Amino acid sequence: MKLQKNNMSKTVISGIVVILLILAIGLMVSCNDNGGSSESADSADSSADTSGVSNDAMAIAEARGLTPDDITAALKTFTPSGVHDEYIMFASGGHGGQVYVIGMPSMRIIKQIAVFTPEPWQGYGYGAEGTMEVLAGGNVGDSDLTWGDTHHPALSETDGDYDGEFLFINDKANGRVAVIDLKDFETKQLVKNPIALGDHGGTFVVPDTEWVIEGGQYGAPLGWEYASIDDYNEDYRGMVTFWKFDREAGRIDTDTSFAIELPPYWQDLCDAGKLASEGWIFCNSFNTERATGGVEDGNPPFEAGASQNDMDFLHVIDKEKAIEVAAAGKTMDVQGFPVIPLQTAIDEGLLYFIPEPKSPHGVDVTPDGKFLTISGKLDPHVSIYSFQKIQDAIAAGSFEYDDYGVPIIAFDDAVEAQVEVGLGPLHTQYDDKGYAYTSLFLEPAVSRWTLGGDFSDLHEEEDWTLVTKTPVQYNVGHIAVAEGDTVSPDGKYLVSMNKWAIDRFNNVGPLLPQNFQLLDISEAGTNMPVIYDLPIPDGEPHYAQIIKADKLDPWEVYPEIGWNPHTNSVDPNVVQLGEERVERNGNEVEIWMTAVRSHFTPEHVNIKQGDHVTWHITNVERAYDATHGFSIPYYNINLSIEPGEATTFEFDATEDGVFSYYCTEFCSALHLEMTGYMMIEPSE
Amino acid sequence: MKLQKNNMSKTVISGIVVILLILAIGLMVSCNDNGGSSESADSADSSADTSGVSNDAMAIAEARGLTPDDITAALKTFTPSGVHDEYIMFASGGHGGQVYVIGMPSMRIIKQIAVFTPEPWQGYGYGAEGTMEVLAGGNVGDSDLTWGDTHHPALSETDGDYDGEFLFINDKANGRVAVIDLKDFETKQLVKNPIALGDHGGTFVVPDTEWVIEGGQYGAPLGWEYASIDDYNEDYRGMVTFWKFDREAGRIDTDTSFAIELPPYWQDLCDAGKLASEGWIFCNSFNTERATGGVEDGNPPFEAGASQNDMDFLHVIDKEKAIEVAAAGKTMDVQGFPVIPLQTAIDEGLLYFIPEPKSPHGVDVTPDGKFLTISGKLDPHVSIYSFQKIQDAIAAGSFEYDDYGVPIIAFDDAVEAQVEVGLGPLHTQYDDKGYAYTSLFLEPAVSRWTLGGDFSDLHEEEDWTLVTKTPVQYNVGHIAVAEGDTVSPDGKYLVSMNKWAIDRFNNVGPLLPQNFQLLDISEAGTNMPVIYDLPIPDGEPHYAQIIKADKLDPWEVYPEIGWNPHTNSVDPNVVQLGEERVERNGNEVEIWMTAVRSHFTPEHVNIKQGDHVTWHITNVERAYDATHGFSIPYYNINLSIEPGEATTFEFDATEDGVFSYYCTEFCSALHLEMTGYMMIEPSE
Repeated sequence: MKLQKNNMSKTVISGIVVILLILAIGLMVSCNDNGGSSESADSADSSADTSGVSNDAMAIAEARGLTPDDITAALKTFTPSGVHDEYIMFASGGHGGQVYVIGMPSMRIIKQIAVFTPEPWQGYGYGAEGTMEVLAGGNVGDSDLTWGDTHHPALSETDGDYDGEFLFINDKANGRVAVIDLKDFETKQLVKNPIALGDHGGTFVVPDTEWVIEGGQYGAPLGWEYASIDDYNEDYRGMVTFWKFDREAGRIDTDTSFAIELPPYWQDLCDAGKLASEGWIFCNSFNTERATGGVEDGNPPFEAGASQNDMDFLHVIDKEKAIEVAAAGKTMDVQGFPVIPLQTAIDEGLLYFIPEPKSPHGVDVTPDGKFLTISGKLDPHVSIYSFQKIQDAIAAGSFEYDDYGVPIIAFDDAVEAQVEVGLGPLHTQYDDKGYAYTSLFLEPAVSRWTLGGDFSDLHEEEDWTLVTKTPVQYNVGHIAVAEGDTVSPDGKYLVSMNKWAIDRFNNVGPLLPQNFQLLDISEAGTNMPVIYDLPIPDGEPHYAQIIKADKLDPWEVYPEIGWNPHTNSVDPNVVQLGEERVERNGNEVEIWMTAVRSHFTPEHVNIKQGDHVTWHITNVERAYDATHGFSIPYYNINLSIEPGEATTFEFDATEDGVFSYYCTEFCSALHLEMTGYMMIEPSE
Repeated sequence: MKLQKNNMSKTVISGIVVILLILAIGLMVSCNDNGGSSESADSADSSADTSGVSNDAMAIAEARGLTPDDITAALKTFTPSGVHDEYIMFASGGHGGQVYVIGMPSMRIIKQIAVFTPEPWQGYGYGAEGTMEVLAGGNVGDSDLTWGDTHHPALSETDGDYDGEFLFINDKANGRVAVIDLKDFETKQLVKNPIALGDHGGTFVVPDTEWVIEGGQYGAPLGWEYASIDDYNEDYRGMVTFWKFDREAGRIDTDTSFAIELPPYWQDLCDAGKLASEGWIFCNSFNTERATGGVEDGNPPFEAGASQNDMDFLHVIDKEKAIEVAAAGKTMDVQGFPVIPLQTAIDEGLLYFIPEPKSPHGVDVTPDGKFLTISGKLDPHVSIYSFQKIQDAIAAGSFEYDDYGVPIIAFDDAVEAQVEVGLGPLHTQYDDKGYAYTSLFLEPAVSRWTLGGDFSDLHEEEDWTLVTKTPVQYNVGHIAVAEGDTVSPDGKYLVSMNKWAIDRFNNVGPLLPQNFQLLDISEAGTNMPVIYDLPIPDGEPHYAQIIKADKLDPWEVYPEIGWNPHTNSVDPNVVQLGEERVERNGNEVEIWMTAVRSHFTPEHVNIKQGDHVTWHITNVERAYDATHGFSIPYYNINLSIEPGEATTFEFDATEDGVFSYYCTEFCSALHLEMTGYMMIEPSE
């Protein structure tokens, strides 16, 4: 009732505001009419024309039905031509398999980064040797995979702050992790988890990025062996994997990485401790019921069977101890990969559980590292655990044990507070004002609530209380705050990653985009409006991280002509202008080619059917944006050769004929003439 | 000098406007402060809060450095949450191989449609039988192609107006044409041109969409046979292809399609006549020099060799006559496809040339069909030809002839006017006010100039004169006006499809997005400002068409449970709730499964290594947006099963183990529980 009354009075106020706005506009109109009258109407340079602006603008706002709130939102987000965005969001592209790069607050998608799915614009997986090797690194056994289900992007950190150097992301479907170098925004490495087919709780980095954490998901025999579902408790297991990141090399070092065997609960999201809790890893889990499904046989389906317990288990892992144990070789071998056995993890005291309500999806460490927020999808509260209390409980040593012998810390021994936030709490982020934000899938809404502890002084409201909620459209999963996973979040903007769009955008058929809604969270208190709706034309974009744009320092062009982005050095097969040539050795043909606006050299390539062809191309341009594409029909080849880049591809000339290769980037007025003939003479 | 003076006075005026704006804002601020003070600060429903709006908004505009022009642009483009766009732009995704669906004026990408490149979010090419068959239709010989270079989208037309039913687009790289059904925004058919490996001048439709035109590009032996480049004049040829479209079936009928052999000039863009010129097809060409390149041998590179002549040849084709000739069987057979020989085309009087200056890229028929605008990239004019004059010249029969005997109509006999528009004119569009717009690649700018003839009364300026130019950033290729290729363009908005972005957006590494700039062309005269910059995170998006959104009428969900989008009927393997089952016949396993929030039935599937598996899934949901994904690790399978859809996939169970299948669309709070186990028992 109170809400309704407020709404009514707001409508009245809103009407008054509109009328006053129109009055104010009237003043502007007359001013502008005066201004405009001295303006020549003849200028060809109309883009600098500012006459009549407000007059037009407000008439337009009225004609377009924009409310005062809409006008505010427009002015908060509109980013004029040539003006750069303040933040960059790296969002998973879900089962599209890629990463989205989005400017904020303009909410424009500036780039897609091809990660698990071949993508021809970027020349990723269409012949270019370096990219073919990256993709092959992600194959599962002898299966060439050409897609992924990207979930959790993680920016590299230094001292717990995003440093803008690398981005990691996992593939839930096939249990893989990718490394993206933010010098050129290209994927440099895929690694396949050797012990689990799938994952979910990754990627997460520790505060200096020495380790990239990948948590598991569906219980399965380690090493994806076969075992009957009837032997679930004995033969199925969970896992968490610690990938060692070599920052100098810019690659994961698989040789010094390891995993920990876990009970066959379904591990979900993880987070790394920071500051107070640095050195610890937290992963939650669901289906501690160990339901094995089978709705077709009259069993409860997973959705019911895995939702019976009031509590699941937060996994608390002593990272330093785990590293020591792995380094000491106290591991078993699964597909050649070292795995700390569950019993060893227990014996060494590196694994503890804490009950957590109920079907949790998020465990999120506060910026100071002192608290963890647990969101249970089927519990209307968030539960806040104290890291100090957890340490005290471990020291006290008063445990219960789960069926596998893992010590359980009592819920009451760990919990600091609970806040009733609403239906379907899922994931929590923090800001710079002592607030936490939790997504509420079922309402759907984004809630703001207050932190206690050292955050208490930052806000005016009582600690650990709900402050406000903003409805979102619809079904919010994760949320992301600017610099939200660091030790010093910026606040300011929050993106609500909504899974359903329904009526939000024009109907584009039965398959709809997702909806990223931008919330302005810069003001303390109850006002945190939605200011932009961005459709995401791709898979379920699970999570995102948002970095201050000025922390990124990508190359505009590659450092030297002949740069190989996969070795980060000049390629031995660099081709300088004047050094182009074709060499034949038996049926091995090798081509050294240059690309420059607007021709390839050579323009004729003669090949015999049956030849094996190795083709090197260097883009000798030094101008920013002077990328050349290179395609060959039939042979399914397309390259993106950026300024300075050297690349190589190979193929067998199985089919004879005349094939026009051409530049697929519109590089100049004579771009269509940037072509050549590959002539493959028949073998008979 | 005059320009500079204008700019200076504008700056002063702009300053005055800003001051007056601030004064006006002052009034609004005080009004709003009054309004705001009666507002409860406690409401949890903050999204409806309208207090203090103008106060905030204008302070924000100032803080963000927005000029009055920026504010106008913001209010012209910002589209509030839940408000739908007025227009939908279908833009090629260039060598990404897809189509972009963009709302206007918000300039948000609402969807990508997978066309030539497999795309897992849409389940396109990742197992689903219908999509695998569509992609296979585009294979070249025995080569499985997994990308394309999409160029020219064409919306289906009825009486020369977009009807919102279908979209066509070509693949330049491999000479293919795609059919997209706008009931579900999915690709239904790919056809491979049987006589040419590549194309460019397509797709273009005739006013009632009976035919889809695909023009050629690089000269080559027909049927992609081998021939030495030394025999270019004799053995290499150009082409134009007429694909028959069966609207009832929603497919191209390859059996009644045909092509015309053309001289080995490089045919480029085409356009179909309309109204006055209905029944005729126009294609331009370049490299009438028949340069064969070979820069490595001291020959001029193509960019020079193909740019020597002052004139190339516009191809004027009598479509009705061509259809008759093809129907009469006066064709030769190239790879099983009927082709009207060049000599026959000449003898039957269905092909004429007109000289056109110089390296043209666009031939664009005016809305009334009476004129054609020719843009030569290396000539600063656009040349306007009169269709009536062309007809008169054909009737008069006074021709010269090219080397292949094609009759040439004299330039002076065809030309109506020339307008000097600037450097690098490329492509022309028309509006509702008697203006034409031509992109200028080299300046770069968009020019507005006046039409004559019946358009003369619509504008105040002199006929056939340049009115204004708006600079764009940078290197504009094509432009698209709302409903611009129809008999009744809407004007209002123009999109400048810029090839280079350079500094327009945050640096994202050496490979940059394209830049679509939205111009407001609603006002007559010299004012047509850029009001939005949209980065396009994909390949060179060559061309776009823009349709009034209310002409589209896509399905929200499929019409019936069990709908097969590739047969447009209920699938024989539809699975209704309760009908789920697994059947085994020897080593053939067949599964009938349902998907509904939030479980699959069955949840266990037992298979033996070596089995062949056929798997049917029906999404039995009827709720809008209740799409379920379905993925299987290792086997590279991912489906998108939209509400009502039935789909089938097959695979050989080569690898044993335990594989979790799960829903890849976040469909409910218990989405993570929407999973099941496929257990493949080893064969030993």
